[in-house]
Amino acid sequence: MKFPELKNDRYLKALLKQETDTTPVWIMRQAGRYLPEYRETRKQAGSFLDLCKTPELACEVTLQPLRRFDLDAAILFSDILTIPDAMNLGLYFSEGEGPKFKHPIRSHADIDKLFVPDPADSLRYVTDAVTLIRQELDGLVPLIGFSGSPWTLATYMIEGGSSKDYHHSKGLLYSEPAALHKILDIIAQSVVVYLNAQIEAGAQSVMIFDTWGGVLSPQAYQEFSLRYMQQIVEQLNRHHDNQKIPVTLFTKGGAQWIEWTANTGCDAVGLDWTISIDEARQRIGDKVALQGNLDPNVLYADAGTIQQEVKQLIEKFGNHTGHVFNLGHGIHQTVNPDHLKVLVDAVHHYGREIRNS
Amino acid sequence: MKFPELKNDRYLKALLKQETDTTPVWIMRQAGRYLPEYRETRKQAGSFLDLCKTPELACEVTLQPLRRFDLDAAILFSDILTIPDAMNLGLYFSEGEGPKFKHPIRSHADIDKLFVPDPADSLRYVTDAVTLIRQELDGLVPLIGFSGSPWTLATYMIEGGSSKDYHHSKGLLYSEPAALHKILDIIAQSVVVYLNAQIEAGAQSVMIFDTWGGVLSPQAYQEFSLRYMQQIVEQLNRHHDNQKIPVTLFTKGGAQWIEWTANTGCDAVGLDWTISIDEARQRIGDKVALQGNLDPNVLYADAGTIQQEVKQLIEKFGNHTGHVFNLGHGIHQTVNPDHLKVLVDAVHHYGREIRNS
Repeated sequence: MKFPELKNDRYLKALLKQETDTTPVWIMRQAGRYLPEYRETRKQAGSFLDLCKTPELACEVTLQPLRRFDLDAAILFSDILTIPDAMNLGLYFSEGEGPKFKHPIRSHADIDKLFVPDPADSLRYVTDAVTLIRQELDGLVPLIGFSGSPWTLATYMIEGGSSKDYHHSKGLLYSEPAALHKILDIIAQSVVVYLNAQIEAGAQSVMIFDTWGGVLSPQAYQEFSLRYMQQIVEQLNRHHDNQKIPVTLFTKGGAQWIEWTANTGCDAVGLDWTISIDEARQRIGDKVALQGNLDPNVLYADAGTIQQEVKQLIEKFGNHTGHVFNLGHGIHQTVNPDHLKVLVDAVHHYGREIRNS
Repeated sequence: MKFPELKNDRYLKALLKQETDTTPVWIMRQAGRYLPEYRETRKQAGSFLDLCKTPELACEVTLQPLRRFDLDAAILFSDILTIPDAMNLGLYFSEGEGPKFKHPIRSHADIDKLFVPDPADSLRYVTDAVTLIRQELDGLVPLIGFSGSPWTLATYMIEGGSSKDYHHSKGLLYSEPAALHKILDIIAQSVVVYLNAQIEAGAQSVMIFDTWGGVLSPQAYQEFSLRYMQQIVEQLNRHHDNQKIPVTLFTKGGAQWIEWTANTGCDAVGLDWTISIDEARQRIGDKVALQGNLDPNVLYADAGTIQQEVKQLIEKFGNHTGHVFNLGHGIHQTVNPDHLKVLVDAVHHYGREIRNS
């Protein structure tokens, strides 16, 4: 496949700790419910899953935020539970309760039924969307592919949906660790082929979201989450089409363990807002790039406050290479989109300022 | 008031970093829904609030776990939202959705209506329960009093209940910090008189639960949560009836900031399970005692695993004074009570063993 030439490579350069004219910025969940045009497309699609599974619509919502804001990257619009869905666990969404599985893993027989889905088959809608988005982007900004982490996917697959206390998944962790490892290993293999297929289809960078790694003890995090992310990092096609494909790992609630995450061989570590980025940089040095990490709630404040918070964060990181600005978590659905415009413009403004300081 | 002499002072001694024959243990939410006898009393009481507000019933459920397990402390059975309830915010519990307020704080006028409740008046049921429990305990173990932290109470008062994203409370934090400080200051004053009244009524130690401090950025944690906990620590009656009254601070999700918490002048820092207790001890030294910190989900495992996890934790802390064993968060309601017995007995067993090593 031949894609249009990339015009804005700030994001990719920052991930590789190369010089850029200003700090690149993208926003987790930048394509989402806070945008009226997203809600409109979502309505047309019917269900949320239909939206994810129709490449033209997934492409449309991926591009929507780029029409409004001067963002430096696009991220594939999809769900993190596509892999377990392709494993036939029966993904569905119940209004107001989030994702659910009709067939959660509750027995050894359920584990034996798990398999590595072929991305050319049941996940074809994802790679089709990636290629279409990459074409439609026309080189404007790079496209990020992504997956949930094995531990995060496992919690949903074992609990049958979201969880408050991880009764079944952590119950398995403590009572039958070998069974949990079996599940995690199959998921990790699946994530490798899934992300490699996204890279093949046109993703220029990939990110792994370990949304629930932070609910583990340090020892359990290493053994049941980090270990599998490292395995994935080692098996990804990190070069494609004469380009390096940077990999970002993000564990929400994992600020305590960023040294470990940085040591997996990834290119960048995503930070939530519970750590000061200057402390993070001090602890990690320039081993990897850092992505983050403004509290998403700052977007509820007025323009002046948002600008001040952006300025402060950029100054804390300092005049170094290797910073991708982002929120510390996904943008909330009740945020006014105009506030995000203030943020994005402020990042570029203060990012330039710090480079001239 | 004259109370029966204390027979088991392991818990108080450990908080003051004095030698004990073994490691003391109590469990957050040890009086609660995982116990069939609790569910029975709860049914008799009618509503959860009736249970909290009837001293005889609050006393009964406080004592229930002590009849089953060899625990080293009792904790007052109450709700963390008693103070905002006494401020007339209209606390109620909706089935399956947790606590709610009829009149959340949403305007400056709402803030102006806040006041410091007189514990001898609208919170009398709490101090009556404390005195009754202390008498009924008959010196078996010490009684812990408690309160929510100002920030944690403020989130419920501003959101009107539990929250996923702290839209209103963090919105206020970033857009009108002075208004939030006004709220926090009134709550902090209220917590001081409330806890001092519990101490006066018979509480032999007090604990402040900062359940939602961990959702803040480091800077916001210092300014909007820790600062007010420190203010409370400084204003509590730390000596009563010729005894020192130890104070424990617990910020869930605050493992990154334990040095700051330890510097408030408190006697002990509660740890959730996301930090290794040996690392915590290394960082804090013997400045304060440590409470914690087993993952509550360990209780879903078999007896042998529970014993191993307890042993490992006690060995990680090592043969030092100043450890109170606990879970890193409240016990889950679906745990088998027999498993808690295994844990409590294992703590005493391995606590003795480490002292003889």
